Amino acid sequence: MALLTRIRGPRDLDRLGPEQLEQLAGEIRTFLVDAVAKTGGHLGPNLGVVELTIALHRVFHSPQDRVLFDTGHQSYVHKLLTGRQDFTGLRAKGGLSGYPSRAESDHDVIENSHASTVLGWADGLAKANEVRGKSDHVVAVIGDGALTGGMAWEALNNIAAAKDRPLVIVVNDNERSYAPTIGGLANHLATLRTTDGYERFLARGKDILERTPVVGKPLYETLHGAKKGLKDFIAPQGMFEDLGLKYVGPIDGHDIEALESALARAKRFGGPVIVHCLTEKGRGYKPAEQDEADRFHGIGPIHPDTGLPVKTAAASWTSVFGDEMVKLGRERKDIVAITAAMLQPVGLKKFADAFPDRIYDVGIAEQHAATSAAGLATGGVHPVFAVYATFLNRAFDQVLMDVALHKCGVTFVLDRAGVTGDDGASHNGMWDMSMLQVVPTLRIAAPRDAAQLRAQLREAVKVEDAPTVLRYSKGVVGPAVPAVGKIGGMDVLRKPTAAKPDVLVVSVGALAPMCLEVADLLDKQGISSTVVDPRWVKPVDAALPELAAKHRVVVTVEDNIRTGGVGSAVAQSLRDAGVDLPLRDFGIPERFLDHASRKEVMAEIGLTAPDIARQVTGLVARIDNRGAGAEEATDAPDATGGARPAEVARD
Amino acid sequence: MALLTRIRGPRDLDRLGPEQLEQLAGEIRTFLVDAVAKTGGHLGPNLGVVELTIALHRVFHSPQDRVLFDTGHQSYVHKLLTGRQDFTGLRAKGGLSGYPSRAESDHDVIENSHASTVLGWADGLAKANEVRGKSDHVVAVIGDGALTGGMAWEALNNIAAAKDRPLVIVVNDNERSYAPTIGGLANHLATLRTTDGYERFLARGKDILERTPVVGKPLYETLHGAKKGLKDFIAPQGMFEDLGLKYVGPIDGHDIEALESALARAKRFGGPVIVHCLTEKGRGYKPAEQDEADRFHGIGPIHPDTGLPVKTAAASWTSVFGDEMVKLGRERKDIVAITAAMLQPVGLKKFADAFPDRIYDVGIAEQHAATSAAGLATGGVHPVFAVYATFLNRAFDQVLMDVALHKCGVTFVLDRAGVTGDDGASHNGMWDMSMLQVVPTLRIAAPRDAAQLRAQLREAVKVEDAPTVLRYSKGVVGPAVPAVGKIGGMDVLRKPTAAKPDVLVVSVGALAPMCLEVADLLDKQGISSTVVDPRWVKPVDAALPELAAKHRVVVTVEDNIRTGGVGSAVAQSLRDAGVDLPLRDFGIPERFLDHASRKEVMAEIGLTAPDIARQVTGLVARIDNRGAGAEEATDAPDATGGARPAEVARD
Repeated sequence: MALLTRIRGPRDLDRLGPEQLEQLAGEIRTFLVDAVAKTGGHLGPNLGVVELTIALHRVFHSPQDRVLFDTGHQSYVHKLLTGRQDFTGLRAKGGLSGYPSRAESDHDVIENSHASTVLGWADGLAKANEVRGKSDHVVAVIGDGALTGGMAWEALNNIAAAKDRPLVIVVNDNERSYAPTIGGLANHLATLRTTDGYERFLARGKDILERTPVVGKPLYETLHGAKKGLKDFIAPQGMFEDLGLKYVGPIDGHDIEALESALARAKRFGGPVIVHCLTEKGRGYKPAEQDEADRFHGIGPIHPDTGLPVKTAAASWTSVFGDEMVKLGRERKDIVAITAAMLQPVGLKKFADAFPDRIYDVGIAEQHAATSAAGLATGGVHPVFAVYATFLNRAFDQVLMDVALHKCGVTFVLDRAGVTGDDGASHNGMWDMSMLQVVPTLRIAAPRDAAQLRAQLREAVKVEDAPTVLRYSKGVVGPAVPAVGKIGGMDVLRKPTAAKPDVLVVSVGALAPMCLEVADLLDKQGISSTVVDPRWVKPVDAALPELAAKHRVVVTVEDNIRTGGVGSAVAQSLRDAGVDLPLRDFGIPERFLDHASRKEVMAEIGLTAPDIARQVTGLVARIDNRGAGAEEATDAPDATGGARPAEVARD
Repeated sequence: MALLTRIRGPRDLDRLGPEQLEQLAGEIRTFLVDAVAKTGGHLGPNLGVVELTIALHRVFHSPQDRVLFDTGHQSYVHKLLTGRQDFTGLRAKGGLSGYPSRAESDHDVIENSHASTVLGWADGLAKANEVRGKSDHVVAVIGDGALTGGMAWEALNNIAAAKDRPLVIVVNDNERSYAPTIGGLANHLATLRTTDGYERFLARGKDILERTPVVGKPLYETLHGAKKGLKDFIAPQGMFEDLGLKYVGPIDGHDIEALESALARAKRFGGPVIVHCLTEKGRGYKPAEQDEADRFHGIGPIHPDTGLPVKTAAASWTSVFGDEMVKLGRERKDIVAITAAMLQPVGLKKFADAFPDRIYDVGIAEQHAATSAAGLATGGVHPVFAVYATFLNRAFDQVLMDVALHKCGVTFVLDRAGVTGDDGASHNGMWDMSMLQVVPTLRIAAPRDAAQLRAQLREAVKVEDAPTVLRYSKGVVGPAVPAVGKIGGMDVLRKPTAAKPDVLVVSVGALAPMCLEVADLLDKQGISSTVVDPRWVKPVDAALPELAAKHRVVVTVEDNIRTGGVGSAVAQSLRDAGVDLPLRDFGIPERFLDHASRKEVMAEIGLTAPDIARQVTGLVARIDNRGAGAEEATDAPDATGGARPAEVARD
């Protein structure tokens, strides 16, 4: 790491010659494999952009020039070159974020890990430069996969419309995003890739030419400048030309000189330019290069030499879902599955292998996933769209207007719901149960264990006239939590020890074990409680208000933002039924959560059994002391925040 | 109307010859102008698709074949040809919907009026046909404007990827959606339009040739078939070719024969085909043809001969906003404005005229509007994005992840918020105050009158580190509602008549006069109340819980879906403060609303002063009778639904 450790900022790259840059690229690769093997993280994407990131920082002067990365998991090299070389705490509490982070560096702009946003950002930043009369540059790096997202198209149209507004778009084309990129655009990029263009020809011959230096400048550069000429170099091509965008490429994305040359010319052009770079995901790391599935896209800790995981994965929510889908696919020919470029991560690989005619990978296109699902349902089949909970936010309008308004039987399966932790703010699946509450007719299931997941998936695909949502956590599925009774559609998980119980605990999904622990802790304080799992958290079970009325206090516990979540829905149902009981709704506070482990985040926001039990105990004590009723509850909350949910006391 | 009245369904078109079809087109135009002049509605778009719709229904056999319209306000002709010719109640309660409606006809599929969805629907329907082994056809009509929406791009990629799945895309290119279409795609379409293609040449000569019939078939048809030949007819071109889509066109969209010929060949092709039709919005109606602004896109009742409105519009919320924006633009050079293809409808025309360098029309691209706004804010200017409330649903993820997470000072101005009524379910702006509640740091203002709108817009554009939302109703702005006091940040609109008041009424936005009326009605029942307007409804004003605690009951009234709305937020803030008072939240019930006037809808859902007053009176009486407290409120609600919000009693 002789060179890497001397790079404190991008300008330190300026004094390095071609051979030193090659050496630096090698050092960065070694560093990345060693570091990410220990912590886990996004390895493949970063190995693919080593040379590209070096070239970007040599040509553009960040932070005055804005160097923007789409889906920031490809920003590790950028971090190394902008003064952040301590990767020991990567994605851990207090350590480096796995994504760009404004708190870490002025060189970071976009923290959001949702794909396809960078061109919108770039368009806005370029417009702001224009309004303010600034001549700084904006360069946006976007993967071929992210170009399939609708936002990217909206931005391309706008960028292309302003011929004189400088903006460099680097298409990082590795022929795969999470998986081989699908669709018409992918075919077009493939055509451009196989075009035997001059730039590509030069790149191929470059290794030989470079070894024959001429006085003053390398032969490669001489030939390049002489034969191509500036005016022809930026040549429109194909689709991008049709939109009015200049096109440069394809460029060998592992050839620093070729990259610099192309980027420098694009920078000078003065209008919108696309620089099409071909890169290899996992480049330089054999286990990744040989992994056709996803090239070590995102990994846990691995043995660096073999690439094998340190721990073998236990059964996950994802795999339980995936296995059940295969069974359902066998039983019902009318069930089809949809993924938005995440076949493997959402557990649909087995289904795809078993039923290749009934799987649709729509690209990074959640909107299309939802609306085409409405079409599929209207056409007489039942689509199951499996997606990370946080990414469904992209399709809110489509779920509401295309699926629900049109009474379509579509099953949405939300993986990674709730606090996911180490990927940071934008990966937490903490919005779904609030966002979806407002969708009329939609039903939400939050299975608490593997058996419930299987059962509720089966219930969901039977609904033919409305959308249904299943949501479950990231990672290993917990132990079975048996029901000890049934009230309405709700499972009773724990019956009260007293004849007239104090507290009704409404447990949502995977938090059932925590809620049972809360009940145990309350018992020790002499407070008797019932624990129910409503299974379907929207609509609120019709039997809930009557059950609640048999208690003195209602407590809801959910792994979702508190605002407008299950707790609010339960509270509203009680009000509507005239059951004016004190209720406390525990959940995720309304703020963006810093990256840390799930356990650390849950502790920090007070979503633990002891925290909840302590607060409920305080509330019950206050009611006992007061004796009176709700309309006299004019006392200020006690100073310890006893009866208030955690985040109010803590924020 | 000799021909039109005899058309009971699409197959009645089969027996009409070319001249009769021309006559029918004329009759339809006359019908549309007469009918829409009386009721108001979308005139220009429908005048533009008369011949196209006739040709579609001759070539495709609806409802087995699916004839799909994007942004269904262009479906009036389709209605006329599918058995719906009573337009007297268009967009009125009980009358025809202004959009397709499944309840009206089996020929209708997509009811949603949000743009750019049709290709997603078509892709899903075509996939379903494939899975089910059906050979029915799917044809989707989409405007050039709607193609700028990201969903359309996502769908195009997917459609293009399946070379053998039949699907006909008709691009209805009128060079303008609401306004001249912007962007790279528009430029490309313009290139295609001006291509002196054979089809266009023939169309030009057709009028003359038609008058020279040859035996058996018209000369036009003969020449057409002879010279062009089937194999060349479906010729790939430009961008669409690059994506792998076959392209036919451009076709004269007012030439029924040319349209039929192109559509019939596209239907036979067996894969995805684009048919590019050139139409003229407002065709055949002089006042519309001469209106360069929007060609009578959507109108109120007019005098059919002159096209002048029957009523002169009073000052609207929109115009108050538009005028204030011009003032702000003069005062601050760093304020820019964004519209998503609705410059005129959202009131930004004056701003655009005054500051042409500071207005961005991004096309029908709400996602891009929001994310480019984040870029603009990060670049040091303050963007104001004005949009219909219902369309912001498209950009939920971008508001959350790009704007709020990145602490960007962006002002969102939501026009047509609340019940809008006559445009039906998908135009009501009833979701925003729920959807946006979950966005951390975001603030929402609901101005109650023109003065408040101006004042709160000024407060909003001062916020530099978080998104701010202003939302207001459709139509005429009401009379000024003065404040009679101030508590915290809240305006007191009415002080209680009793020393110890019973009810705190929290009024949201334009419902202030209604809330004052509620207070008057309660007074007559001997119930004393305070009415406050929090002005900023998110976050809940810090002074609200303490104020609430001085009352016995809290009532919230909002023009937004009840689920997760302002009422829920207020209720949560009271719980968090330990103020366990009975609260009743009045708003829009969680269901899709049929079209009717705003007044009719409000009455139907019980959002009227007498309804609210009656229910609050019942609640207060119940509390008085009981005397005890919330924790004993185990009685079932009374049979009249007295204490329950309106929709529970009514649904």
